[in-house]
Amino acid sequence: MSDAPPSSFTRYPAGGEAFPHKDLTGISELAPWQILYLLDEAEQWVTLNRQATKHVDALAGLTIINAFFENSTRTLLSFEIAGKRLGADVVNMHAAQSSVKKGETLIDTAATLNAMQVDAIVIRHASSGAVRLIADKVDCPVLNAGDGRHEHPTQALLDALTIRQWMRARGEEEFNGLKVAICGDILHSRVARSNILLLSALGAEVRVCAPPALMPAAIEQMRVSPYTNFNEAIDGADVVMMLRLQNERMSGPFIPSAREYRHLYGLTTERLKRAAPHALVMHPGPMNRGVEIDSDVADSIERSAITRQVEMGVAIRMACLDVLTRRARGVPGWEPLKAEETA
Amino acid sequence: MSDAPPSSFTRYPAGGEAFPHKDLTGISELAPWQILYLLDEAEQWVTLNRQATKHVDALAGLTIINAFFENSTRTLLSFEIAGKRLGADVVNMHAAQSSVKKGETLIDTAATLNAMQVDAIVIRHASSGAVRLIADKVDCPVLNAGDGRHEHPTQALLDALTIRQWMRARGEEEFNGLKVAICGDILHSRVARSNILLLSALGAEVRVCAPPALMPAAIEQMRVSPYTNFNEAIDGADVVMMLRLQNERMSGPFIPSAREYRHLYGLTTERLKRAAPHALVMHPGPMNRGVEIDSDVADSIERSAITRQVEMGVAIRMACLDVLTRRARGVPGWEPLKAEETA
Amino acid sequence: MSDAPPSSFTRYPAGGEAFPHKDLTGISELAPWQILYLLDEAEQWVTLNRQATKHVDALAGLTIINAFFENSTRTLLSFEIAGKRLGADVVNMHAAQSSVKKGETLIDTAATLNAMQVDAIVIRHASSGAVRLIADKVDCPVLNAGDGRHEHPTQALLDALTIRQWMRARGEEEFNGLKVAICGDILHSRVARSNILLLSALGAEVRVCAPPALMPAAIEQMRVSPYTNFNEAIDGADVVMMLRLQNERMSGPFIPSAREYRHLYGLTTERLKRAAPHALVMHPGPMNRGVEIDSDVADSIERSAITRQVEMGVAIRMACLDVLTRRARGVPGWEPLKAEETA
Repeated sequence: MSDAPPSSFTRYPAGGEAFPHKDLTGISELAPWQILYLLDEAEQWVTLNRQATKHVDALAGLTIINAFFENSTRTLLSFEIAGKRLGADVVNMHAAQSSVKKGETLIDTAATLNAMQVDAIVIRHASSGAVRLIADKVDCPVLNAGDGRHEHPTQALLDALTIRQWMRARGEEEFNGLKVAICGDILHSRVARSNILLLSALGAEVRVCAPPALMPAAIEQMRVSPYTNFNEAIDGADVVMMLRLQNERMSGPFIPSAREYRHLYGLTTERLKRAAPHALVMHPGPMNRGVEIDSDVADSIERSAITRQVEMGVAIRMACLDVLTRRARGVPGWEPLKAEETA
Repeated sequence: MSDAPPSSFTRYPAGGEAFPHKDLTGISELAPWQILYLLDEAEQWVTLNRQATKHVDALAGLTIINAFFENSTRTLLSFEIAGKRLGADVVNMHAAQSSVKKGETLIDTAATLNAMQVDAIVIRHASSGAVRLIADKVDCPVLNAGDGRHEHPTQALLDALTIRQWMRARGEEEFNGLKVAICGDILHSRVARSNILLLSALGAEVRVCAPPALMPAAIEQMRVSPYTNFNEAIDGADVVMMLRLQNERMSGPFIPSAREYRHLYGLTTERLKRAAPHALVMHPGPMNRGVEIDSDVADSIERSAITRQVEMGVAIRMACLDVLTRRARGVPGWEPLKAEETA
Repeated sequence: MSDAPPSSFTRYPAGGEAFPHKDLTGISELAPWQILYLLDEAEQWVTLNRQATKHVDALAGLTIINAFFENSTRTLLSFEIAGKRLGADVVNMHAAQSSVKKGETLIDTAATLNAMQVDAIVIRHASSGAVRLIADKVDCPVLNAGDGRHEHPTQALLDALTIRQWMRARGEEEFNGLKVAICGDILHSRVARSNILLLSALGAEVRVCAPPALMPAAIEQMRVSPYTNFNEAIDGADVVMMLRLQNERMSGPFIPSAREYRHLYGLTTERLKRAAPHALVMHPGPMNRGVEIDSDVADSIERSAITRQVEMGVAIRMACLDVLTRRARGVPGWEPLKAEETA
């Protein structure tokens, strides 16, 4: 159904040409081979994190700020652990303490962080585009940890890394032709958006499924097949990716009730039988057990990749922090970007 | 009065046999010699912390998470300092930011932390038993920093270390026969509970004193002597341990008023005269001066061990973090636990 | 107008005599040459912070606590980055978690931090004098990060460092005779107070300008010239330092409205023309754009030093932490202070 790009992107240029970006603000900015480069880079950190001692000095002497204008336990923990394991000095800036509350503009906050000469800024913000706005105002690399309904690129990357590990365990390698069903609140989900962009770019066949009120209007333009019937969407899927149903949407204009939602869009053992026999189950967390996903499915050792996703998250964030700071660290082959590339 | 165990436990086996536990969730799980082992291990950290440079690399490369689902300044600071002085990468997870607020189950939070491959988790939680629940779900050591009304084992250990230092300064060594009076809200206090378990295990004669409404029903089963008259409880005591009166209990069904409480259960200079002439005064903090303890007593240089308790707290927590991570760090003699020991 | 001290203080004694103080609680405690000593010490950190790798091990093995009883994003970030870049173990104590909320006295909090054997405590507190109170109770150096309406010494020091850099770029060196206009809520501002003390001590001619209701009664005693007309205060000024107008003062008894305030006391491009042609514009941040300062002025590359102030902030705090911990670290020439000096 989707208009898939060519099947192989495993070749990328040497040195800094492999990732010619100052920031990581969205999957939409990345070429397929740049995505694969980040996945390949993450593998070394998967290995490191499984060892007893999991710390390197690659980023020693650098200062990383996690500026979270929107609360998030998991993503903040993941980035903080990633930065510390790479040896950086990591500082968290909590929204609740922020000058933003005193009426400071986002641009002034960006200018302040920049003046402290930090070496990378990780930002989560409730407004779509806020991260790009800041990235354009600061000298150092900016990583998007989720901005409004826009993008959450490290989530899509960690999901891809999880899928690729599972494919390789089955002797496969190519995303091309992989059937992925993403089900839930597609309309409001930056996780869905980044995953659609990434998986489509790598050639997967992406189906999205949502209640009519939670499906974006022109979703077909994203090279996905839209469904409002979950049973149809999941049919023969290789990967079933469930999205969290935000509590505030569990009743009211979008859906009648959590119970009704589970009935139509919850992933149950029964419903999972419609997917491919080997199908992988994913969820970005935190889960609403008994709403969008049943415990039997979530806890299935054979099918569920949910905790594996968390593990891959730390590795992906280490890869992104490492790659994005190479130019400032003077890593050989990583020359400064030309002006047109930094924009 | 108490059914004291034998008087000497100073011998413990070599290597990992000295502490055959994956976690530290309660004093109730420890044999007397295991308690003494942790006290002995703490001495080196007492010494280190008194030096100008107080940092080692014993836990370098390890990641420790302080997961505090209940606020606590002192205990969090103490554990954070302990972890950092041992060279670990320390990350705090604050309840206020937690996915728990989004409806995630405790088990899922545990699975998430586990997937991030952390090397120790320190947990404070408002529910009794929550720490054990998490400990059973994660691969790494879990330390209980206070769970509901259940236990607060590092508090009892630091209290014991404080008492032993004071005994040794007086040429004594044995807890056996030591008269300890614990006074306050015994019913709701995990500090009291862990202290009763520890001190009884080491052979001390423990008296507990509380207003009738704040005394647990079957307290005699814990090998302590219950009192509702503080003057009687303190009579001839070697150690007087006062508990904090929670503000929410200062009026209402349990006690009529803070003033009345002080009159009956406050430690005043006058009342302290009933204790042994050398008696040591303790309080886990933070104090309500003029309620459960008068300032004259709290600030007495000769009698009060209150700031010393804080000092011992950092040392005890360093010992616990060091000992519990030895197996993962491959310290010689510390083989992995057998399955029945990890349960 | 002001009774300026002699024009040169660039000589200071060698070793610890250059800074014979245990704490940094206020500019009022410093001799002019001690101020200059801290500025000179900061230069090395300005240089370090501009390098790719910005970390030394000068304070390795030391524990620094940032105890912020009043929220502050910028100042906390600045101190945290400063401590970490110097290699210390840095721990933040947030007011929201504090035992203070449980009714603990400030003295007990101080005793607790002291017992944890920390090597420096950075304190922000809403009460004037609270920092001095704590400093007198603890063994380690205490740094004032802002206390009530009293002082904010590191802000004044970073402002002075910013001014001196700008003077040197113009071939000048002496603060003597420099015309500085400070405009805003002088009555409630610890930033104004510390800056007045510092600039006067170094011989600058300080003018303060505020609406009548926001001007302290006996301000002339601080060797400044008071103005209620901003146009007169700014006339020929070399440096124009704007203060933040707290939101809570933007209407009501002090001033009628933010709009009215801008009309009379806002720094506009038009008004800035009354200052010296080379005049430097400063603001401690966060700014209320369009109230006390217009964006044209704040963002002027030629005139505004606002982001430069932030940069100097990290360097000054590194200098203060380094200098104040030298005695405990046994740096040659830095003997322990005599009793009368520690008071």
